[in-house]
Amino acid sequence: MTTSQGIPAAVSDVRAAGGTLGVAVIGTGRMGADHVRRINEVISGARVAAVVDVDADRVRSVADGVEGAVPYTDPAAAMHDPDVHAVLIASPGPAHEAALLTAFEHDLPVLCEKPLTPDPGSALRVMAAEQRLGHRRVQVGFMRRYDADYLKLKDLLSRRSYGRTLLLHHKHRNADTPPGFSNAMMIHDSLVHEVDVTRWLLDEEITAVRVFRPAPTTHAPARLSDPQLILFETAAGQIVDTELFVNCGFGYQVRCEAVCEDGTATIGDEHGVHVNAAGRWGGDITPGFVERFEAAYDRQVQRWVDATRRGETEGPSAWDGYAAAAVCEAGVAAQTTGERVEVRMIERPAFYG
Amino acid sequence: MTTSQGIPAAVSDVRAAGGTLGVAVIGTGRMGADHVRRINEVISGARVAAVVDVDADRVRSVADGVEGAVPYTDPAAAMHDPDVHAVLIASPGPAHEAALLTAFEHDLPVLCEKPLTPDPGSALRVMAAEQRLGHRRVQVGFMRRYDADYLKLKDLLSRRSYGRTLLLHHKHRNADTPPGFSNAMMIHDSLVHEVDVTRWLLDEEITAVRVFRPAPTTHAPARLSDPQLILFETAAGQIVDTELFVNCGFGYQVRCEAVCEDGTATIGDEHGVHVNAAGRWGGDITPGFVERFEAAYDRQVQRWVDATRRGETEGPSAWDGYAAAAVCEAGVAAQTTGERVEVRMIERPAFYG
Amino acid sequence: MTTSQGIPAAVSDVRAAGGTLGVAVIGTGRMGADHVRRINEVISGARVAAVVDVDADRVRSVADGVEGAVPYTDPAAAMHDPDVHAVLIASPGPAHEAALLTAFEHDLPVLCEKPLTPDPGSALRVMAAEQRLGHRRVQVGFMRRYDADYLKLKDLLSRRSYGRTLLLHHKHRNADTPPGFSNAMMIHDSLVHEVDVTRWLLDEEITAVRVFRPAPTTHAPARLSDPQLILFETAAGQIVDTELFVNCGFGYQVRCEAVCEDGTATIGDEHGVHVNAAGRWGGDITPGFVERFEAAYDRQVQRWVDATRRGETEGPSAWDGYAAAAVCEAGVAAQTTGERVEVRMIERPAFYG
Amino acid sequence: MTTSQGIPAAVSDVRAAGGTLGVAVIGTGRMGADHVRRINEVISGARVAAVVDVDADRVRSVADGVEGAVPYTDPAAAMHDPDVHAVLIASPGPAHEAALLTAFEHDLPVLCEKPLTPDPGSALRVMAAEQRLGHRRVQVGFMRRYDADYLKLKDLLSRRSYGRTLLLHHKHRNADTPPGFSNAMMIHDSLVHEVDVTRWLLDEEITAVRVFRPAPTTHAPARLSDPQLILFETAAGQIVDTELFVNCGFGYQVRCEAVCEDGTATIGDEHGVHVNAAGRWGGDITPGFVERFEAAYDRQVQRWVDATRRGETEGPSAWDGYAAAAVCEAGVAAQTTGERVEVRMIERPAFYG
Repeated sequence: MTTSQGIPAAVSDVRAAGGTLGVAVIGTGRMGADHVRRINEVISGARVAAVVDVDADRVRSVADGVEGAVPYTDPAAAMHDPDVHAVLIASPGPAHEAALLTAFEHDLPVLCEKPLTPDPGSALRVMAAEQRLGHRRVQVGFMRRYDADYLKLKDLLSRRSYGRTLLLHHKHRNADTPPGFSNAMMIHDSLVHEVDVTRWLLDEEITAVRVFRPAPTTHAPARLSDPQLILFETAAGQIVDTELFVNCGFGYQVRCEAVCEDGTATIGDEHGVHVNAAGRWGGDITPGFVERFEAAYDRQVQRWVDATRRGETEGPSAWDGYAAAAVCEAGVAAQTTGERVEVRMIERPAFYG
Repeated sequence: MTTSQGIPAAVSDVRAAGGTLGVAVIGTGRMGADHVRRINEVISGARVAAVVDVDADRVRSVADGVEGAVPYTDPAAAMHDPDVHAVLIASPGPAHEAALLTAFEHDLPVLCEKPLTPDPGSALRVMAAEQRLGHRRVQVGFMRRYDADYLKLKDLLSRRSYGRTLLLHHKHRNADTPPGFSNAMMIHDSLVHEVDVTRWLLDEEITAVRVFRPAPTTHAPARLSDPQLILFETAAGQIVDTELFVNCGFGYQVRCEAVCEDGTATIGDEHGVHVNAAGRWGGDITPGFVERFEAAYDRQVQRWVDATRRGETEGPSAWDGYAAAAVCEAGVAAQTTGERVEVRMIERPAFYG
Repeated sequence: MTTSQGIPAAVSDVRAAGGTLGVAVIGTGRMGADHVRRINEVISGARVAAVVDVDADRVRSVADGVEGAVPYTDPAAAMHDPDVHAVLIASPGPAHEAALLTAFEHDLPVLCEKPLTPDPGSALRVMAAEQRLGHRRVQVGFMRRYDADYLKLKDLLSRRSYGRTLLLHHKHRNADTPPGFSNAMMIHDSLVHEVDVTRWLLDEEITAVRVFRPAPTTHAPARLSDPQLILFETAAGQIVDTELFVNCGFGYQVRCEAVCEDGTATIGDEHGVHVNAAGRWGGDITPGFVERFEAAYDRQVQRWVDATRRGETEGPSAWDGYAAAAVCEAGVAAQTTGERVEVRMIERPAFYG
Repeated sequence: MTTSQGIPAAVSDVRAAGGTLGVAVIGTGRMGADHVRRINEVISGARVAAVVDVDADRVRSVADGVEGAVPYTDPAAAMHDPDVHAVLIASPGPAHEAALLTAFEHDLPVLCEKPLTPDPGSALRVMAAEQRLGHRRVQVGFMRRYDADYLKLKDLLSRRSYGRTLLLHHKHRNADTPPGFSNAMMIHDSLVHEVDVTRWLLDEEITAVRVFRPAPTTHAPARLSDPQLILFETAAGQIVDTELFVNCGFGYQVRCEAVCEDGTATIGDEHGVHVNAAGRWGGDITPGFVERFEAAYDRQVQRWVDATRRGETEGPSAWDGYAAAAVCEAGVAAQTTGERVEVRMIERPAFYG
C-alpha cells in the first residue's frame, strides 16, 4: 500500500486533501475525549475525521461537537473511511492489539496510548505484524519523552555533561486512586512511565526488578500496598529506585534526579507562583497529570502529526511498548513474590534499530 | 462591511473557506518571521495567506517557505486579497498607524505587535478610527497577559486572595542590548511591558512616573543609563518599582512580586532542571524572551485566531495601547528631567469599557 | 587609665580574674534580659557581673537568677564595681549618651545596642568624648553584620566577585507592630538596620533619602503609613530601595539583593524544612527577628567578648552609630515632606579610619 | 563515687571550682583538636583542663595553645587529675572501650565521639559497665540530633503532623574520600549517621539491611564500590533508602525526606546566598561536614556541658552506640553477601528506657 516513493497511500491522500491530516480517534473515554479536543483546537495541520466507540450514543454525542467528524462503532469501518489518514488509539489496553493489526492492514500511521498491549506476548505479535509491513507505523504514547524538563534532562545525560549516569531516583505521587485500583495497576498504569523514561534516559534495558512494600498508608484502599519502592537494575549495572505513592493526598508530583559521576541533575521541583502568607511560604502543588503534562501531550500529538504528514514514523516504537510490557510483567512478579525477578526480553530486532 | 449578524465580512469568508483563517503577516523582521513560523506550524485553525515587507527579495524568500503564502510589498494590496481574513502587524512601530487604518477600511481583525503606535497622539487617531467602525478590531501584542504565571498572579490579585495590592516590585533584565539602544528605548521597548502588566494586574491607571538613574554599569554602551529604577504611582495610590537592567550579562529574567495586605505573591523564579556540580547548585538562566515567553506568544496568537473565527475581538485593546504610549511619554520625560512627571490621558471612552 | 602596653586597666583586671570578662548589663527590658541570658549561658569567656535598671524590683529579680550578678539601679555605681570589666548598654536610646560618657570615664569597653544615641548631635558628643580617650571603646549593636548570610554577601561584594555594585533591593517585613509604633519609628527602629547594612555592604555613605508612601494596608494602626518605600542615594551614585512593611501579617522577612555589573546575589530566601501537604509545598516563615538573627546576636557578643579580652575594640563604631543617626534624621524629614532630603554629616574623623 | 544527692563527685567538684567544667579531651586528631578549640572559644561554662594523646610532642603542642590545659599521654592519668570533671573521647574507635571503662571507674561524664566502639560485642561490654555504675554517664557524639533542621524534622514526625511516617529517603554525599577509605568504612564511618538518625527520627529499631552496588564511578579508588544504595527495614515495617556517594566531587550534601501519610517533609536543601551570573542561578554547595554541621557540634557540646554541670546525662546513650554498631555489622554483611541481612540486637535494657 506504500507508493513507489516510500510514502504511504494515506499520506499521499493527505497531500491531495490540502495537507490537513484526517485522524480517527478510537476510544472516547477520558484520554480519547481529551485527544479529540486537542486535535480539534490545539494541533496544527490535523483534524478529527472520525471518532470510534462501541457506545453508539456516546460516540455520536462526541462527534456532534466536532465539525467534520464522523462517528463509528467499529474501528475497521473508520479505517476504511477515505478521509482517515491516521489513527489515534485511546481505547482500553485489551482492545489495542486488534486495532493495531487493522491499522497495519491499511498501512495507517498510529499513535497508540500506552500500553502498546497489556502483555509481552501480544506486544510481540504487534511487532511481528509491523515488521512484516516493512516500515514503522506505531508511535507509543509515552508522553513524558515530550515534556520540556525531561527533554532537557535527556539532553544533559546524552551529552554526558556530568559523566556517566550511576543512579536514578524517581518519585511518582498521585493524590488518590480511582475505585478498583490494584497492586498490578500500580505497575502497569503508574510504574510503566518510570519504566519507559528509565530506558529512554539511560539508553539501557532494564534487566531485573525488585519491589519493596512498606507498611501501607491508612489512606489506601484495603489490599492496596501503597507506597511501594521499586528497584531496577540495568544492563549497564545502574540502579534505579522509584517511590510510587498513589494515595499521597497532597497532589501530583513527578520528580527525577539523575546521579552522575560529576554531578546530579533534578527535574520536577515546584515553581510558578510563590506566596508568602499566614506564616508560610510556598506554592500550589499540581493537582493532576493533565496539568503537569498538558504541554507534553500537545507536543507529542503535534510531533506525530508533523511526522505523519512527512510520511515518517518516529517517537517511542512498538519495541518500546514491548519492553515496557516485559518489565511490567517482571514487576508484577517481583511485587507478588517479594524477590528479585529478572526481565525476560527477546533480542532487539534490527528493524527497531 | 459587517454582515447583518454583526459578523464581519472577512469572518464570513473564513467560514466559507472551511474555517481556516487566512492571515496576512505584515513585516518579516525577527518578530514577523517568528509569527509566520508560529501560524504555519503551531497555531490550529489559521494559515499564512500573505506576507508583506517593503523588501521585495526578503518577502519573496519568506513566502517561498510557506505553502499558499502570497508575497506583497504593499500592506493595502495584501488586505485586498480575498484569502486574507485577518492581519498580524509586526512592522516597525512608525508604520503601524497606516496599516491599522487600512485594516479598518477592510474591517479586518488585527493583532498588532506592541507598540500600538509610538506616541499617544497617533494612538488616539487609531482609537478614533476604530470607534467610527463601531466595534473593536485591534488586539495589541502584550503577550505577558498570556503567560501562565502572570495569568495565575492576575487571578490571585483579582480575587483579592491576599487582600488589596499595595506595591508591585518588577525586575526586567536582559543579557545585552542591540547596537543603537537608547535611553528612550529603555522606556518604549522594555519598560512598556511593565507599563501594561501593571495596568492589567492592578486594574488601575498609572498617574505619575519617576526615573532614577544610578551610576551605570561599565558594560552598557556610552550614554546608555543602565540600570534604571522606575517608580509608578497609580490612581489608587499604589507604588510600583521596576528595576530595568538591559546589559546585565547573565541572561533574561522577568520577575514580579505583588505585595498585598495579607501576603505577597511572586512569579518568575527559576525552575526546570537543577544541577549539583563543581561546588555549585542551581540551573540555567533563560537566555532570552523568546524562550521565556514562547508559550505565551503561542497562546496569544491562538486566542486571537479562535476569537477571530468566532467573529470577536478580545485581549489588550487600542485603549491599552494608547495608555502604554501615554505612560511611556511621561516616562521619557521623567527620565530626561529627573522629576516626577504626571501621566496625561484622555477619559476612557465607553467604547473600551 | 590605659596601661603602658595600651591595654586598658579593666582588661588587665580581666587577666588577673582568670580571664573571664565581667560584664555590666544596663537595661533589663526585652533586649537587656536576652543579653543577660546570652552572656550567662551561651557566651564563652564572659559572665554577668552586674545588672542595672532604674526599676529596683525588676533588677533584683533579674540578678537573682544569675550566679554572681550584682543588681544596681545606677549605671555609674555598676561601673565602679571592680568585677565589672565591660558594659553592655541595652537601656532606652535617650539614656545611652550618659551611660556611654560614664563608661568612657572608666575607660570601659562598651557594646551599645542601636541606636548609639537618638540623634546626630548627641552622637557627635559621644564621638568627641571617645576621641578624647584616644582609642575606640564603643561597638554599636548592628548585629546584621554578624549574620552568616550577610557576611557571605559582604565578602562577595568586597571581592567584587561580580563587578561593582549598582543597586541594592532590601525587603524588611514584620508581622505586626507594638502599640504606639509611629512613622518616625519606622525610620529610627526599623529602617536603621538597612541604613547600616547599606553603608557596610557598599562601603559608601548615604547622601540623600526619599520616602514614598503608598495607600496603606488596613491592618496598620491609624496614622501609620505602612508599607513605605525608601530610596537611598550613595556617594558613589548607587540607588538603594527598601520595602518597609511592618504589619504584613505573615511573619518576619529580611532580604537583600545586590545587583552588580556581572550578576546579582540575594540573601534571605527561606530554607530549612520544606513540606508537601494539603495541595501546597513550602515551609514556615520565621516568626520574628529573634529566631532569624539569634546566631548573629550570639556571634556579635562573642566577638565583642573575645576582642575585649584581647584589649581591643572592633565592629561597628561610634562613627557608624552617628552616620545611622544622620541618615535617619534625613529619613524622617523625607518622610514628612515627601521630598528628597540630603544627608548632612561631618567629615569622617581620621580616628575612625 | 556518687554523692548522696545522686550528683557525682566530679560535679560537686565543679561547683566548688566556681561552676566551670574542666574537660579532658582524649585524642588530638582532626575532631579532637576541633573540640579543644570549641571548648576553649565557643562553649560557655567549660574549659579544657587536660589534653591526651599518645604522641607526646603533639599533645604538648596542643596544650601550649590553651591556657590551663595540662598535657597527658595516658588517659587514666588525665582522669586522675582533680581539675578534670568530664571527658570528651575523640581518639580512634578501637581505643574507646578502654577509655570509657576508665572513665566509669572515676564516674566521670563522657561525651564519646562516634562510634561508641567499633563492634556490638565491645559496645555491650561498655553498656554492662555503665549499668553496673547505676546511672548513665555516656553521651555518644551523633551530632545530627543537634542540627537545627533535623530537630525541626524530628519534631514534625514526633507530633505526627502529617500522620505516620512510611518511608525515609536519605542522601549522603561527600566530595571525596581520604586514602585507604574502604567499603566497610562506607558503612561504619558514613552510613552510621543515617543509622542513628533513622532510629532517632522514627523511634524504631532497624531490623534488616540490604546493600545495592551499582557500577561505580570512575572517580572512586580501585575496589571502592561508590555509590551504594542501602535499604533498611524497621520493626514497624518502614522502608528507608540511603544514597551513599562519597566521591561525588561536587561537595557535601546531607538530605532527608520523610514520606508520611498526609505529606512529606524535606531537609537539607541548599540556601544562603543565591547568585545570578554567567547564565546560571544558584549557590555554593557546602564543602564539608564541618561547615554544614558546625552549629550542631557546638550545640551538642554545649548541651553536654550544661547537663554535666547539672549532674545529669542526656542525649544519645551507649544503647544508641550499641544499636549503631549492630546495624553496621549487619550492613557490612549485607554489603559483602549482596543479601538481606537481619540485624541482631539484645533486648533493650530497662536502664536505657
